[in-house]
Amino acid sequence: MGKKIKIEKKVLEENEKLAAAIRSKLKDKRILALNLVSSPGSGKTSLLEKTLGALKNKLNMGVIAGDVQTENDANRLIKAGGKIVRPLITGGACHLDARMVAQVLEEFELTNLDVLFIENVGNLVCPAGYDLGEDMKVVLISTTEGHDKPLKYPAMFRRSSVLVINKTDLLGLSDFDMDAVKKNAQGINPELKTFEISCRKEVGLDSWYNWLTGEVGRKKSVTR
Amino acid sequence: MGKKIKIEKKVLEENEKLAAAIRSKLKDKRILALNLVSSPGSGKTSLLEKTLGALKNKLNMGVIAGDVQTENDANRLIKAGGKIVRPLITGGACHLDARMVAQVLEEFELTNLDVLFIENVGNLVCPAGYDLGEDMKVVLISTTEGHDKPLKYPAMFRRSSVLVINKTDLLGLSDFDMDAVKKNAQGINPELKTFEISCRKEVGLDSWYNWLTGEVGRKKSVTR
Repeated sequence: MGKKIKIEKKVLEENEKLAAAIRSKLKDKRILALNLVSSPGSGKTSLLEKTLGALKNKLNMGVIAGDVQTENDANRLIKAGGKIVRPLITGGACHLDARMVAQVLEEFELTNLDVLFIENVGNLVCPAGYDLGEDMKVVLISTTEGHDKPLKYPAMFRRSSVLVINKTDLLGLSDFDMDAVKKNAQGINPELKTFEISCRKEVGLDSWYNWLTGEVGRKKSVTR
Repeated sequence: MGKKIKIEKKVLEENEKLAAAIRSKLKDKRILALNLVSSPGSGKTSLLEKTLGALKNKLNMGVIAGDVQTENDANRLIKAGGKIVRPLITGGACHLDARMVAQVLEEFELTNLDVLFIENVGNLVCPAGYDLGEDMKVVLISTTEGHDKPLKYPAMFRRSSVLVINKTDLLGLSDFDMDAVKKNAQGINPELKTFEISCRKEVGLDSWYNWLTGEVGRKKSVTR
């Protein structure tokens, strides 16, 4: 299997190069890029729907909506007010890679964009290894998934800068322990900035919007 | 990338051979093997906990509990009454493969075993491509994940024989549409045998137990 590992290493090295090129391009245009990762069904699309709706008059937001199949997410996001939404169908692949993102970005109108959201394939394992040129990975977890997930999928929590805990409206209806999930996540990554939200009940979203707006401002103010 | 595809093909071919050997071994011993697949947190371990508890006096059940990290699941299953439970930690890999399963089976006491459950890594994408020598894949989905999951992750639903819809106690607390998920799943795979259950509230489990016991009987009665 040495040959397999060698090829994998080459693929990752190639990915790093392409990701660096994306990062440099986005830095040049001062666009904040967030790579949203989670299990299927944690609420990446719901969070983006809410965010596009709430901030559309304040920020210019673009979305690359990755999925194994279907343009369902992209369609939901366009409906939510997303002006620049592109589906990215992997056709079976378990994660987005920098090559796919670079290709989509070629036909993207980047001028005047403040934020680029990249919604990754629903998968807590594979997307952890692939840099897409983002400023930060945002990992979502929902309260119905169990508080041991950071321990079981540590790479994703280690490589993310932000943790969004969604579906707080369902707290108490499962054995999910909010303190335990935060302790588990911070044990792996003490720097994780954490938000507790319910997209469905629209709870806790303001802190997320404020943080996002602040990060956009910070990115804009960085000297080139 | 032609080289990468060639290597992947070789890896899969090697996996097929090892899976065939496992299948033949289990057939010889008339052990029913089920490969449980789902997103993280859909309830694979909960379903096994209930099943081990309910049927421990009726069936001899073994479990291979796969995870990226931690032996949490294996420990839960031993506590639930599982006599033959082995953790299988992939250490980063996003799915189990036949080589890993074959290795664990070497130290498994297979004599008198009726069922072998293989709990795969929580991942709706990658485990679809890896045959582990099982009789059937059982795919779980929970009502909090969204009814479009079969459309977005079609390979897993196409290659599974059984669909278990868990967390029915949370129906009505999300936009999950039970008829839609069944329609979506059966559009991809009309042969899918479907169970609706709540592990937490212990609803619908008897049908699952009856089906499982029936399948064990069927496997035992097959002439070698």
